[in-house]
Amino acid sequence: MLLTNILDGYRLILASQSPRRSELLRGLDLKFEVIVRPDIIEDFPSSMKPEEVPQFLALQKSENYLDLLDEKTIIITADTIVILNNKILGKPVDNEDAISIISQLSGNMHEVVTGVCIRSKNKVKEFCAVSKVWFKNLSHEEIDYYIKNYKPMDKAGAYGIQEWIGYVGIERIEGSFYNVMGLPVQAVYNELKDFV
Amino acid sequence: MLLTNILDGYRLILASQSPRRSELLRGLDLKFEVIVRPDIIEDFPSSMKPEEVPQFLALQKSENYLDLLDEKTIIITADTIVILNNKILGKPVDNEDAISIISQLSGNMHEVVTGVCIRSKNKVKEFCAVSKVWFKNLSHEEIDYYIKNYKPMDKAGAYGIQEWIGYVGIERIEGSFYNVMGLPVQAVYNELKDFV
Repeated sequence: MLLTNILDGYRLILASQSPRRSELLRGLDLKFEVIVRPDIIEDFPSSMKPEEVPQFLALQKSENYLDLLDEKTIIITADTIVILNNKILGKPVDNEDAISIISQLSGNMHEVVTGVCIRSKNKVKEFCAVSKVWFKNLSHEEIDYYIKNYKPMDKAGAYGIQEWIGYVGIERIEGSFYNVMGLPVQAVYNELKDFV
Repeated sequence: MLLTNILDGYRLILASQSPRRSELLRGLDLKFEVIVRPDIIEDFPSSMKPEEVPQFLALQKSENYLDLLDEKTIIITADTIVILNNKILGKPVDNEDAISIISQLSGNMHEVVTGVCIRSKNKVKEFCAVSKVWFKNLSHEEIDYYIKNYKPMDKAGAYGIQEWIGYVGIERIEGSFYNVMGLPVQAVYNELKDFV
């Protein structure tokens, strides 16, 4: 059966303020609502491996919505990070930080990891997806142009693969493209099918 | 220097009727026109290796626009094919053919090859890009739903990675995502920089 029919009678909630995640979930032709509450403080044990962090944070975020849940309500939360040389690169704090982050990605391969948590009243499922991304050597001029014109302050790793810098600078990827955008929709589709 | 400045004073023409190629080239923040003439008959030697065909056809297409060219005019032509088990899968001729093509892609890895030709009056450069794409096992219902709702008759391999079937069905890729959409923009950007 098609997922859209399987989910008939369910209330699906995407708890994320990212317009990209909404766009990606819409791409599955599913009906859902977006509900966003102020983020709880995102914290994780300092001993945790970088690639385990997004799944941990996605679960933590879902705990902020428990009162909304019943047997027929499913909530999706997610967290995306960029990992370079085993170090997490988060969202930039200002322009200078964005320049520094993209300069580190330039000429290198990094990993994008998205953790996803799917939750109903009695069930919870977490998983994550990893994609590898190769940037060409970017010039200072290219990095400046991107940051001035696209202001990637809301983006992990200070870039959007669907923006100019992704067109100009990304030589290849391995894994899910949509994961790099913020939600591994193919995996979400599979997991939702198994969930209900 | 930024490519947009390097191309200042040049007339850039995209000779393709694909709205996706226009969208992708626009993503490079370049000014260009779209000019499309009726296609010449696309023909290639039967002994030619499948992966060499798109580049051959892109060059052939560019010969249809020679009268437009001068030193300050650059024309881009492209051709995209899908290769499965060393066999070219073209655009579907009807619904039944689309079902047959997607059924062959289901559960398998295929290659998407785009050949590109960049040409001015005195210079011509051809190249191609190869991306690998892995489809999950698609159900008959999923294939039917896609073809009915998205009518992929204008697409090589009978699918668009940026449509529902790409969201639902593609597990991973290796290479350029935008190449799978129809134009390897990162390579086009590099080649245009070297061209002028």
